[in-house]
Amino acid sequence: MTSNTSSNSSGGDVDPAVREELSRLRDSIDNIDAAVVHMLAERFKATQQVGHLKAKHQLPPADPAREARQIARLRTLAENAKLDPAFAEKFLNFIIAEVIRHHESIAEDTLNGAETAAPRP
Amino acid sequence: MTSNTSSNSSGGDVDPAVREELSRLRDSIDNIDAAVVHMLAERFKATQQVGHLKAKHQLPPADPAREARQIARLRTLAENAKLDPAFAEKFLNFIIAEVIRHHESIAEDTLNGAETAAPRP
Repeated sequence: MTSNTSSNSSGGDVDPAVREELSRLRDSIDNIDAAVVHMLAERFKATQQVGHLKAKHQLPPADPAREARQIARLRTLAENAKLDPAFAEKFLNFIIAEVIRHHESIAEDTLNGAETAAPRP
Repeated sequence: MTSNTSSNSSGGDVDPAVREELSRLRDSIDNIDAAVVHMLAERFKATQQVGHLKAKHQLPPADPAREARQIARLRTLAENAKLDPAFAEKFLNFIIAEVIRHHESIAEDTLNGAETAAPRP
């Protein structure tokens, strides 16, 4: 190791053992990402069903009380798993924002479909 | 079902069967969220190790070529899982932004630690 503090941007002279360790860690990260993507696909299947149910029964797309409970629960789970609870909350808000967009669009489609099928006077 | 198009914000007059279905879906969403939070905790454990490795060997915190490969791979995985690939990309960017913040902070700490331990002339 040198005392050079500038960034080694090319990475050309990196110790092969370091490269191998980096590669091992990145393989784990890639496996985790694949798992998370599949979990999120399943999550959106569930929230799409919630969206249709809400649209059909005229329930509002957002539910602040439910969201507050979800955030409190995830923060606790994150703390126990040694994940920054603030990050867990930001993450849930990021997902919920996407879900609400979906629900609004489902509600709009349902309303338009209903109006086309049975126009009001 | 009524033809009322206004939002049922209180949810007080919702059919018990609808409530039950909503509750069933929400339980699944909560289970998925718990799984994802634990996966993310594990992911950050791996990226923290990457951060320390990069700081020790003066590798830059961000790696655009690696990120481009990750995004392309996750978009394909998302498509196969019927998740919006644009959302998967947005999600990965959200996580990477957090990781780079961590790596920068690790690099700073490492540099400060090195300077404190062995001040330069």
